[in-house]
Amino acid sequence: MTQEPHGQFVIGADIGATRLRLALADGEGSIKGRWSASTVGADGAASIVGLMRAGVDTLLRAASLPSDSLSAIAAGAPGITNADSGVVIATSYLMGWRDVPLRQLLETEFGVPASVDNDVNLAAIGEHRAGAAQGISDFVFLAIGTGVGAGIVLNGRLHHGTNWGAGEIGYMLVPGASEAPVERSKPGALEGIVGGEGIKSQWQSRWSEKLTTLPRDATATQIFDHALQSNPLAQEVLQLASRTLAYAIYNTSLMLNSSLFVLGGTIGIHPALCDTTRLILHERSARVQSELIPSALGADAQLTGAIFLALDTATRKLALA
Amino acid sequence: MTQEPHGQFVIGADIGATRLRLALADGEGSIKGRWSASTVGADGAASIVGLMRAGVDTLLRAASLPSDSLSAIAAGAPGITNADSGVVIATSYLMGWRDVPLRQLLETEFGVPASVDNDVNLAAIGEHRAGAAQGISDFVFLAIGTGVGAGIVLNGRLHHGTNWGAGEIGYMLVPGASEAPVERSKPGALEGIVGGEGIKSQWQSRWSEKLTTLPRDATATQIFDHALQSNPLAQEVLQLASRTLAYAIYNTSLMLNSSLFVLGGTIGIHPALCDTTRLILHERSARVQSELIPSALGADAQLTGAIFLALDTATRKLALA
Repeated sequence: MTQEPHGQFVIGADIGATRLRLALADGEGSIKGRWSASTVGADGAASIVGLMRAGVDTLLRAASLPSDSLSAIAAGAPGITNADSGVVIATSYLMGWRDVPLRQLLETEFGVPASVDNDVNLAAIGEHRAGAAQGISDFVFLAIGTGVGAGIVLNGRLHHGTNWGAGEIGYMLVPGASEAPVERSKPGALEGIVGGEGIKSQWQSRWSEKLTTLPRDATATQIFDHALQSNPLAQEVLQLASRTLAYAIYNTSLMLNSSLFVLGGTIGIHPALCDTTRLILHERSARVQSELIPSALGADAQLTGAIFLALDTATRKLALA
Repeated sequence: MTQEPHGQFVIGADIGATRLRLALADGEGSIKGRWSASTVGADGAASIVGLMRAGVDTLLRAASLPSDSLSAIAAGAPGITNADSGVVIATSYLMGWRDVPLRQLLETEFGVPASVDNDVNLAAIGEHRAGAAQGISDFVFLAIGTGVGAGIVLNGRLHHGTNWGAGEIGYMLVPGASEAPVERSKPGALEGIVGGEGIKSQWQSRWSEKLTTLPRDATATQIFDHALQSNPLAQEVLQLASRTLAYAIYNTSLMLNSSLFVLGGTIGIHPALCDTTRLILHERSARVQSELIPSALGADAQLTGAIFLALDTATRKLALA
């Protein structure tokens, strides 16, 4: 067996509220192995780092690599993250993290340079470096899953904002959304219509067994599939989500003048949502001409961004050494 | 008389839809003279440059300066402006400019380096360098006059957007604003409630001589003054404008995570609007904690920004020579 050179591999990690995903990649960013585990009931920072240790060991063993093969690790966290200090400032109630020094925990555990950022920001990096936004210096990545968030790239770099909270688009107030102020850790006005839970609840509030063969507890993806099959009830929910999303994109484009929006996340990549939103946005093309395209990396966007961040981290630390 | 050193003065210009304003400033940015003229009926690019020639000559004569005293000139234009190429891409219907090479026209006319930018962007520069946002690297300047626009400063620099159109906040869709798509050069949804003409039309649609001593054709400033005197009708219009403005600020802050918003423009500096908007924004402080303050430069914000841009232009051209 040819021995790989020392420290030529990196780990990218996607820490989700319910699942931890890892990828081992070489110096060119090619994925050599994947590993994932449920984080339900084990979502404290120490538990997550312990799970990552187990996953990294498994990945290295599977690739027949010695334990000193890593040059860096990078992780995306589902919350507001200070990318400079490496501290996760706050996640949603699902994990409940507050001021977790994640980068330091990772560097201590793995003995290599580490970086952390918000998971949606990492997905934006992924699309920028290897996905739908390659070569585009100004674009917005929209992650639509249970919640809704944005990763903003301006002049080729992530825009984090004064307190690392940029891209909180899920709380945007647009016509048709609730105006009631929401508490921290509660879903936002836009999420209540465009996010996965919001789509389900819009469906449930309209559901009647006379109007559809789909059950009342259908998922957002099932509802959108149903809309593509021309069910009027599902189409109504799709239209509402698409119009609300189009308004949020319109507002963001007015403000930033970004020419490209990339739709990602488990719900964002559904073709019915992307196509319908694009049509509605086109009604306002006199003012906004932004292009709207689906993610090229799909569920791998976050992990891909984490790999590129890890590669940058390895290079930067090497240059400083 | 002491002869000033050659080329130690700059001209800052604010080209408005109805008025042209000039300031002569020394190398420290201190204003040494002002001049203004109506542009009504003379708003073509050649007419404006001709007016500027007359104004500059008058200013130099009044300051007893020779004609070669200028080192640079900078102008703000009321429309989408490519600050790199110096071309005014489009102004509103009031002036109707399309692709005017303003920087080139100014350099030819005055024989000194010139720069141009959008007028609201220059006001943001003014507040950043010498006004309410000194030392703040991320903030948004909101100009509220006849229309509504934003100048966005990120990491200490103006954000212009892919096609130089960033900050078109006057068209933002928020709850309560009209959802009807608007044509180019027509007022936007937000302007219809928050802008000067919008405030007047909201007033007129509610006006009855039984409800107020103020005439039906009152100005926005008069209406807001009337609200401060506790007239319920004027307070209703003020509340509507303030709530709509607060929603736009909230949306912008969610997206950019800017900690500071500076309110300027003839209507934006009215204390009733700033105070009421701040109270409404505070209802959402669980999510957005942006500070809202009035412009420190008032009507001089654009002109001050133009002076600083001219000083930068003189220095840059000197460094390149």
